[in-house]
This record gives sequence, C-alpha cells and structure tokens, in this order.
Amino acid sequence: MEQRFEIEMAVRDYECDLQGIVNNAVYQNYLEHCRHEFLDAIGLGFAQLCRDGIDAVVTRIEIDYRQPLRPGDRFTVALGMRRQGRLRFVFDQSIVRRVDGTTMLEAQVTAVLTRNGRPIAPDPLVAALAGKGWDL
Amino acid sequence: MEQRFEIEMAVRDYECDLQGIVNNAVYQNYLEHCRHEFLDAIGLGFAQLCRDGIDAVVTRIEIDYRQPLRPGDRFTVALGMRRQGRLRFVFDQSIVRRVDGTTMLEAQVTAVLTRNGRPIAPDPLVAALAGKGWDL
Amino acid sequence: MEQRFEIEMAVRDYECDLQGIVNNAVYQNYLEHCRHEFLDAIGLGFAQLCRDGIDAVVTRIEIDYRQPLRPGDRFTVALGMRRQGRLRFVFDQSIVRRVDGTTMLEAQVTAVLTRNGRPIAPDPLVAALAGKGWDL
Amino acid sequence: MEQRFEIEMAVRDYECDLQGIVNNAVYQNYLEHCRHEFLDAIGLGFAQLCRDGIDAVVTRIEIDYRQPLRPGDRFTVALGMRRQGRLRFVFDQSIVRRVDGTTMLEAQVTAVLTRNGRPIAPDPLVAALAGKGWDL
Repeated sequence: MEQRFEIEMAVRDYECDLQGIVNNAVYQNYLEHCRHEFLDAIGLGFAQLCRDGIDAVVTRIEIDYRQPLRPGDRFTVALGMRRQGRLRFVFDQSIVRRVDGTTMLEAQVTAVLTRNGRPIAPDPLVAALAGKGWDL
Repeated sequence: MEQRFEIEMAVRDYECDLQGIVNNAVYQNYLEHCRHEFLDAIGLGFAQLCRDGIDAVVTRIEIDYRQPLRPGDRFTVALGMRRQGRLRFVFDQSIVRRVDGTTMLEAQVTAVLTRNGRPIAPDPLVAALAGKGWDL
Repeated sequence: MEQRFEIEMAVRDYECDLQGIVNNAVYQNYLEHCRHEFLDAIGLGFAQLCRDGIDAVVTRIEIDYRQPLRPGDRFTVALGMRRQGRLRFVFDQSIVRRVDGTTMLEAQVTAVLTRNGRPIAPDPLVAALAGKGWDL
Repeated sequence: MEQRFEIEMAVRDYECDLQGIVNNAVYQNYLEHCRHEFLDAIGLGFAQLCRDGIDAVVTRIEIDYRQPLRPGDRFTVALGMRRQGRLRFVFDQSIVRRVDGTTMLEAQVTAVLTRNGRPIAPDPLVAALAGKGWDL
C-alpha cells in the first residue's frame, strides 16, 4: 500500500486577500485540515485526542510557495509521513492545482505528541497507522 | 541604527483553537502583520504596492514553534532583514511573550518583489530602507 | 423551478474555538461561500464582478444561532432570494446539520450592488437569474 | 458612571479581501474581541468561564454595515449592555473610524450564559458588573 493520503478542496473567496490570491497563512489551514482528516481516517480524531489529554503539536514547518491559488481553483492536498528520531514525525505535504496538475506548494511539517505539555512516544499514532497498513 | 523593527500585539480569543492555544496558522498572520507594519513604516504600504502593480511575494517560510501563545498573552513580534542573492530578501522574525521574555517562535521568511508575476530587483525596497538608514 | 440553492460543507477543526464549537464569525464565512458559489453558478462570479468595477455589498445581516456546529459535522448551507425595494435584495439562508436535519442557524442577508461606491439597480443580477429561471 | 466600554483596534491587511476592504465576517471578530476584553475587564475572562463549565453563547446577531474599513484604518469598537427578559442580555455595539468619527457599523448581539448546554440566569455576570458599578 502506498503511504499517501489526499483530500480535494476548493478555494473560498474569503480566503483571498488584497492581491486577489489565497493568503499565505490560509495554506496552513489547508495543510492542517488534510492532516486532521488523515488522523480521523485512521481513527485518531484531533478533538478525541484533545479530550484524551493528548495534543498533537507542530514543532516546525517549512513551506515552499511555488504558485498562488486563486478564486475558483480546485486543488488536492496530499500527505506522506515518516518518523524522525524517537519522538518526532514528519508530514511531507503538497498542494496540487487540479486543472493542470501544477504543484502550488510543498511543505514539511514536524510534529510530536504531548501529554501535559511533555513529548511522548508516538505509540497511539504507530498503532493506528499499523491498523491501516502504514508503518511509521 | 539597529536593523530591527517590532510591534506589540495581544492574543484574541477567536485566534485560539480546540486545544486552547493560538492556532498554528495564526502566527503567520502575526508575522505578516509585523512585516506589513514595517513596510508601512518605511513608506512602502502593501496596499499601495499592490495598486502600483508590484506584489511582495513570500516564496518560502520556515517556522520553529517553541511554546504556544494562550488567551490573554501579550507579545512582541520583531523582524530583521537581509538580502539573499540578487532578487530575494529574508525576514528573520521572532515572537516573544512579554510577561517573561520567552521566545515562543522563530521564523525565516523569504520574499521577492514581482511585477506581472515576474520577479524584479528589490530596488523600491532598497531605496525605502536607505531612507531610514537600513541597508539590505 | 424552486428558487433554492444549496451546497454541502464540513466543519474544519481550525474553525472551532476554545469552546470546542465553530466560532460565531465562521458561520458568516459559510454563508458568504454559499452566496458566492450561487453567483458563480448563475454566471456572476464575485471576482469577475470585482474586476468589472461592481461590488456586491452586504448592508445588513441578521443571524439566529440555534445550535452550534462541532468538529466533524457535515452540513448544508442553503439560500433563497427576494427583492427588497428598488435596489436591495435579501438572501434567506440556513445551515442544516446533515446527520439529523437540525437547523443550526438561520440568517437574512441584505445586499446591494455598487459601482464606484454608489448603489446601482441589480440589473446584472436580475438578468443572470432570469437565465436560470429565477425571478427577483 | 456611563455604561460603556471601548477598545482601539487597527485593520490588519490579512483581514481584507479581494475587494480591498475588511471582509464582513471579520467585523464579528472585532465585535467579539471587544466583548471578551470587556468580560476580562470585569473579571469574567472567557477562557476562565469556559474552564468553569459556563459558556457565553451568542443566540442572535444583527449587524448594519454602513461603511467598509480599509487597510490602515484605526477604529474604536464600543459596547453598552442591557438585559432582555430573565435570561438574555444584549450588547449594543458600534465600530467608529478614528480619523473622522464615522460610524462604520452598528450591531446588537444577544447572548445567554449556559451550563451543560442549558441557559442559566446571568448571575455571575450581574455580580461582576455590579463590582464595576454597572447594572444589567
């Protein structure tokens, strides 16, 4: 099984700014939404984690902005996932415009699970992934 | 003159999410607001640039999230600036919590000026900075 | 033909606030997105209007919040439309949770078309609607 | 003592949309921020209420949009407060542009306190207000 998850989205006009393009911060919303949909899909909903006292915390994000999305654009947000060291894991994400397959943005998002503000091993994540045939 | 610009801000409750902390994407709003206030302060307003057909475009952003901001927190958003190659320039930014001076976040934001979608030399920026005693 | 337009949407976690529910302001984003999709569907895209020098301006909004949307909720945003006087038109909108058909919110949004900041008769809108069998 | 509370704010560029003006939904953020600052000022912080199991829930909002705010605008968000029936209370709010005193927006926001999703009498609010010389 390929370790890749993706969702389809479309630009909403209110996400665009003065320049007539999607505001830079909004792409982080798109990337986060994809990650949360993924966690939901493997049975680890973000709100549920939150109620269980576990936070999924982003520690670092790198985004390369290639081309801006515009009103009406439809696009695919995708992610792959890999482990980094004992505690951290990295989401490799991209946003691709549907009409022509152009990569608009690439990102690496490093995260860690925490309980009471302290990093914990990503065991709940590893277990949930294993159930879907992914390894971390 | 020190090449540093900063503004004071405070967390607004609607910027916080389920976890009770400022949502990751919102920090980009803070960082952008600081950059735009800076451009305003040197006489290069973003809206004005936009009307002149020049866009200031972010091409890459790296953010290290150290500690989360919470409801009620007051903080300083700061920036320094340096050139990278012929066309690009980098903002080195930080967010520091006022109550105890903790660095909550550090970021490097790479940008370029464009006209009609093509990169141009950052001459308008260099000229405006020179008027304030900054060099790029 | 029934004069009703609707779209399907889902709550994104970043739209929720400290209380674990969708923030009040975000419903306006949902309502606006539905109106813009509708304008697109009748051939009057918001960005296009904007480039033509015509702004669709909301002058008044009334929202009755019945029940809050929560993470994971899927919902339908609907609109009907009617004229009010010579210049204004009103969108009657609702948000209905899909799982059980509960009406979460009802709204009346009054708008007007403007050119150069002055109200104009909604003729472009009337013409576009007529093409779809709607009257205003 | 006059029963009026106000805060100063300024438009941030990312709050503006394609039309070059503040997006309609963003005014709700401004209005909410003013209400939360007010609750803080009387010792009833929103996050604290939330932790105590009490939610301040908006049940209805009416907004009259008079003039749009633009990049760079500074403005005052104000509120007065009155009781409506046994359980509800209403915030009368306005947004005034500082440069010329123009009223940009007026709003009535009806709210209720809830515990476990059920409305409760606004006693915590009445007590907190009394401490500041306000009656509800």
